[in-house]
Amino acid sequence: MDWEAIFATRSGRMRASEIRELLKLLEQPDIISFAGGIPDPALFPKEAFREAYASVLADGSAGAALQYSTSEGFPALRDWVMGQMTALGVACRPDNILITSGSQQALDYLGKLLLSPGDTALVTWPTYLGALQAFNAYEPRYDQLTPMHGNRTPAAYREAAEKAGGQVKFAYLTPDFANPTGETLDKAARERVLDLAEELDIVVIEDTAYQSLRYDGTAVPSMLALDVVRHGDIDATRTISCGSFSKTLSPGLRMGWICAAAPVIRKLVLMKQASDLHSPTINQMAMHHVAEHAFPDQVEKIRGAYRHRRDRMLAALGRHMPDGVSWTRPEGGMFIWVTLPERLDGAELLARAIETARIAFVPGRAFHADGTGANTIRLSFSLAGDEAIDQGIERLGKVIRESL
Amino acid sequence: MDWEAIFATRSGRMRASEIRELLKLLEQPDIISFAGGIPDPALFPKEAFREAYASVLADGSAGAALQYSTSEGFPALRDWVMGQMTALGVACRPDNILITSGSQQALDYLGKLLLSPGDTALVTWPTYLGALQAFNAYEPRYDQLTPMHGNRTPAAYREAAEKAGGQVKFAYLTPDFANPTGETLDKAARERVLDLAEELDIVVIEDTAYQSLRYDGTAVPSMLALDVVRHGDIDATRTISCGSFSKTLSPGLRMGWICAAAPVIRKLVLMKQASDLHSPTINQMAMHHVAEHAFPDQVEKIRGAYRHRRDRMLAALGRHMPDGVSWTRPEGGMFIWVTLPERLDGAELLARAIETARIAFVPGRAFHADGTGANTIRLSFSLAGDEAIDQGIERLGKVIRESL
Repeated sequence: MDWEAIFATRSGRMRASEIRELLKLLEQPDIISFAGGIPDPALFPKEAFREAYASVLADGSAGAALQYSTSEGFPALRDWVMGQMTALGVACRPDNILITSGSQQALDYLGKLLLSPGDTALVTWPTYLGALQAFNAYEPRYDQLTPMHGNRTPAAYREAAEKAGGQVKFAYLTPDFANPTGETLDKAARERVLDLAEELDIVVIEDTAYQSLRYDGTAVPSMLALDVVRHGDIDATRTISCGSFSKTLSPGLRMGWICAAAPVIRKLVLMKQASDLHSPTINQMAMHHVAEHAFPDQVEKIRGAYRHRRDRMLAALGRHMPDGVSWTRPEGGMFIWVTLPERLDGAELLARAIETARIAFVPGRAFHADGTGANTIRLSFSLAGDEAIDQGIERLGKVIRESL
Repeated sequence: MDWEAIFATRSGRMRASEIRELLKLLEQPDIISFAGGIPDPALFPKEAFREAYASVLADGSAGAALQYSTSEGFPALRDWVMGQMTALGVACRPDNILITSGSQQALDYLGKLLLSPGDTALVTWPTYLGALQAFNAYEPRYDQLTPMHGNRTPAAYREAAEKAGGQVKFAYLTPDFANPTGETLDKAARERVLDLAEELDIVVIEDTAYQSLRYDGTAVPSMLALDVVRHGDIDATRTISCGSFSKTLSPGLRMGWICAAAPVIRKLVLMKQASDLHSPTINQMAMHHVAEHAFPDQVEKIRGAYRHRRDRMLAALGRHMPDGVSWTRPEGGMFIWVTLPERLDGAELLARAIETARIAFVPGRAFHADGTGANTIRLSFSLAGDEAIDQGIERLGKVIRESL
């Protein structure tokens, strides 16, 4: 069977992820890794999950936990999310919420719902790699958002999209502590994106994966909250907000949500029904239990731990980076974004860093839809201890200096 | 925001499921329902799942259970599936197995991988409704397989597909105790489908969701096993086998697998990575625990229970159906397929049955890709007790008689 020939007609829908392959190579024990952007398993609320699974598997509820359930999601969990969203300025009802299998599934569904091949998606350079992977399956063209510096004119975006044979369909962004840069959009930048979206009459997809992980500074209203202020009611907004439990409670349960106007949720429910029926019942019930019993304490705990690691890494960078290297100072999240002198290439630096210094990070080019960003790298501080941060950043400084 | 206008360009990818909406309406307590094709929660191996979740959340493994994991699936679970497949005549390696979020996700991925709009998928009339829902998202045309009576010629299928502007891409079928008919394909019929697939050089998608639920008769080798016999090695086959834990251990965990040639699995792993990263780690570990400890006993238990219900329903049909009504006598699974006199319409009968007899079933037309089958209905025996079966079938006979 000539599988390549079979796949050829559809291969545009998928591209290999060099980065994730790379991350696998880096799982060698003697390497100090700032590569993977994953939570520290030592901080997981294990006891709360133990209690939660024991509780949902007790006689009264085990039958329901192990049975099929509705595509919309477990009602009590939708209610919990609704409460969170309302507290963040997004008054909503259960029919504004869909439970998804992680926010990755939300991004896949939104690509499937909104993109035809050749359509344009507006993203920042760089942007979340998983979003590019999800959207790539639907063969879009990308154009660049620059929300902090003012974007291009609506006409410029529209004309470029039409010239490429499609329409601008949505703007995707992570307003808080973005992966990979760690940057946060101020209120003015968020309003500019909403202005642009209104003029283009397109959807805004807001990824709030890191929103709860603020270590200092003042919270900025979410894009959806600002959109609700503009239009008075969530059902009149154009912003689709994607949330996740992965960075707060557990990524291994693969659970997130979409909060949006009810017509959007109705459409996505049909999509979910056709694609996996529903997210696992037992996990939705267990996640609700943990959210009800442990969410505020857990968020407080991880904020403290990650704040400390961020501060330690920023201090180490200050001590060890040579002139000509700059980096972001994130108010939350898991990432610091390092810009190297123009002539350095992050991928080449990584090869040398693994070989000679036994340290790892992610080269920045993969996060750029246009293939630029060669002189950037992403450092994650979520997994490393004090000593690893101090030693690893010292070694990174040495490798950069030797490469100049 | 004009959501309908936004959706219009993509709306071909989704169609509402009238059937599932119907099933919701039928959840009224005084109705005897033969509608939902779902396992009896009283038969779930609850104690085994309790032990499993307690075990995977113990100190040594809780961190891994709650953390991200690989898109391919939990290695020990892939090994377990590999062992099952090998025992069923499909010698394979771990890289022939992908863990999916139910076999519904497998069908969605295979539609995404193989279908371009206008391509042809070969299915039986009737076929599994969930498969049609999954494939519909990729806008195929359907053509009819008739494996028990010999299919049309390869040239006939090819010409019809080309005339419709696409190519024949795959044949989809459930060889054992199919949903909705309960019918099983004999070995000759399976070989005929493989012959046709070889002549058309297309993929065969085999849905084995009910394979373990055989109550009597002799097991027939799976399509994939027959394909391995033809070509000597799974990597030389064209059959993609989709399995599920939903009918044996639990549907609520949404867990199944795909077993196929390694190049197919590699492609699907990329697709899974982009669409939901991986199935929940904790559930894969727990399912492995239950599969290792309880699978044979559990299958034995549910076979006994469902065999009894099938026999009871067949006996009741024999007592209560008027002349001109015929039905299948399945050797396994959950369904009996009833063919009414031509002039009766299953959907109209259902409306009358709910109104006057407080019984429910699923009209057969929805399972037909071409919209035929009006005079058929699907009865599920998986959930009903003895008294409900006896009373419900008696009432069904009365409603049919009154409608003639």
